[in-house]
Amino acid sequence: MEITYIKMHGLGNSYIFVDLFQSNFDESIFAPLAKSVSDVNTGIGSDGLILIHPSDKADVGMRIFNKDGSEGRNCGNGLRCVAKYAYQNRIVANKAFTIETKANNVQAHVHEVNNYVDEVTIDMGEPILTRNNIPMKGTSSDTVVNEPFTIDDKSMNITAVSMGNPHAIFFVEKIEDAPLYELGPRITKDDRFPEGVNVEFVEVVSDTELNFRVWERGSGVTQACGTGACASVVAAVLNGHVLRDKEICVHLSGGDLYVKWANDGHVWMRGRADTTSTGMYYWNR
Amino acid sequence: MEITYIKMHGLGNSYIFVDLFQSNFDESIFAPLAKSVSDVNTGIGSDGLILIHPSDKADVGMRIFNKDGSEGRNCGNGLRCVAKYAYQNRIVANKAFTIETKANNVQAHVHEVNNYVDEVTIDMGEPILTRNNIPMKGTSSDTVVNEPFTIDDKSMNITAVSMGNPHAIFFVEKIEDAPLYELGPRITKDDRFPEGVNVEFVEVVSDTELNFRVWERGSGVTQACGTGACASVVAAVLNGHVLRDKEICVHLSGGDLYVKWANDGHVWMRGRADTTSTGMYYWNR
Repeated sequence: MEITYIKMHGLGNSYIFVDLFQSNFDESIFAPLAKSVSDVNTGIGSDGLILIHPSDKADVGMRIFNKDGSEGRNCGNGLRCVAKYAYQNRIVANKAFTIETKANNVQAHVHEVNNYVDEVTIDMGEPILTRNNIPMKGTSSDTVVNEPFTIDDKSMNITAVSMGNPHAIFFVEKIEDAPLYELGPRITKDDRFPEGVNVEFVEVVSDTELNFRVWERGSGVTQACGTGACASVVAAVLNGHVLRDKEICVHLSGGDLYVKWANDGHVWMRGRADTTSTGMYYWNR
Repeated sequence: MEITYIKMHGLGNSYIFVDLFQSNFDESIFAPLAKSVSDVNTGIGSDGLILIHPSDKADVGMRIFNKDGSEGRNCGNGLRCVAKYAYQNRIVANKAFTIETKANNVQAHVHEVNNYVDEVTIDMGEPILTRNNIPMKGTSSDTVVNEPFTIDDKSMNITAVSMGNPHAIFFVEKIEDAPLYELGPRITKDDRFPEGVNVEFVEVVSDTELNFRVWERGSGVTQACGTGACASVVAAVLNGHVLRDKEICVHLSGGDLYVKWANDGHVWMRGRADTTSTGMYYWNR
């Protein structure tokens, strides 16, 4: 079976994109196709498959299948790529438009320089700050801001934020000294987080800049986590390190994201989306 | 920069192929291109880059660049892919032809079924059996066949073979019980091998079948190692487990290879070569 594809990435978080405006496939193929095409040895190689499809609810729709074949709900890095693709391929005519995802409809706008889209801004929605909805166990207060947190014999302070998925943010003096590999795998499975948690270590470089490292729930250390960068800026505002409604540059391993927790409550994320290859995938089912 | 590519694999050992009959590039780009295109996050994803080029010395030439940008000499899995490509794209007219590599000229022939090349046989040359040329330290005899070998507190028997690169073969009762992860990383760096060694555990299933697992020098556990499969069959002949001049099926993690140590001294390897995608790579130097 021959499938026309495009491969894009947001800060190294890469996906194979299939345009369902151009061709149609039976629903049953998507899970096995995601597994096949994501395999770097026998497929192309990626973090998963993203379908770009017509939508009744928004200007364009997207579905994401992880490399294990399971369907995901949303992905900040993938959304920037979808937005770039939709605009550059004239699926949408305006620079600002909406994208339907399994989770909700999302606002996007593309930034065009010399007829080329370099960066995309995505509305990542409102953070969830109440303990029960993050979810995190405990009773000391309804939000989790700079709360003492002990693991093994280490005493730290945690700020917990959900961006649709739970994040535990720990501020550190120097990002190089963050105990990412030591504590990441322990905290992510800690009993206090009934659904697990993404673990972020964040250094405040200045009132406009953060250094960021992440242990992603289920994936381990990754180059970039869009929702994690957003959660970190929210946590930095809650702790008085940076200002609300101001764009903060977050330095991730894979590159930079610019995040603003706007006064209307929404978190906006701006960053690159890059196309690396286009072609035909020969699928030997 | 836009580069037309094809991605192929031999038993999961995958490469990006660039056809220099179609387009030409400056020598200086190959090392950085290999690094860029092999990266699964920001490129396409592969074990390296293979150039298919015109040759004065053979019917077609190939050069291989590893994913770290270094130039390699040869690769059995890559050679099968080059042969398939050269025949299917009419670079060569006959089913039997020669391929120039950095190491030497190699005989190849393709097996065509219904106008499609499924399998390729490659002449992997003559094995090197003398201790000094493998190279392996020691004095007990000039060849290394079923020689006692102690590491830590384990006593095993080693057969050592070079196929241009050194291999240490250990026969085991059951492949599932082979101490691959325990001893592979130790033996590969053992002082007795001045250039390091590829470590293979082999189960003799019958007089026509071997099970095979490998710890590759510099790479660790891989799905398939063509020279390792060849060395294992040579070792099995030397130990009287299988016959000379008879095709033996070697079951690797990535699939099967058929290997014959012919009476003329050469080792012939037959196996699949699969095309997974073709397209354009957008290289952001």
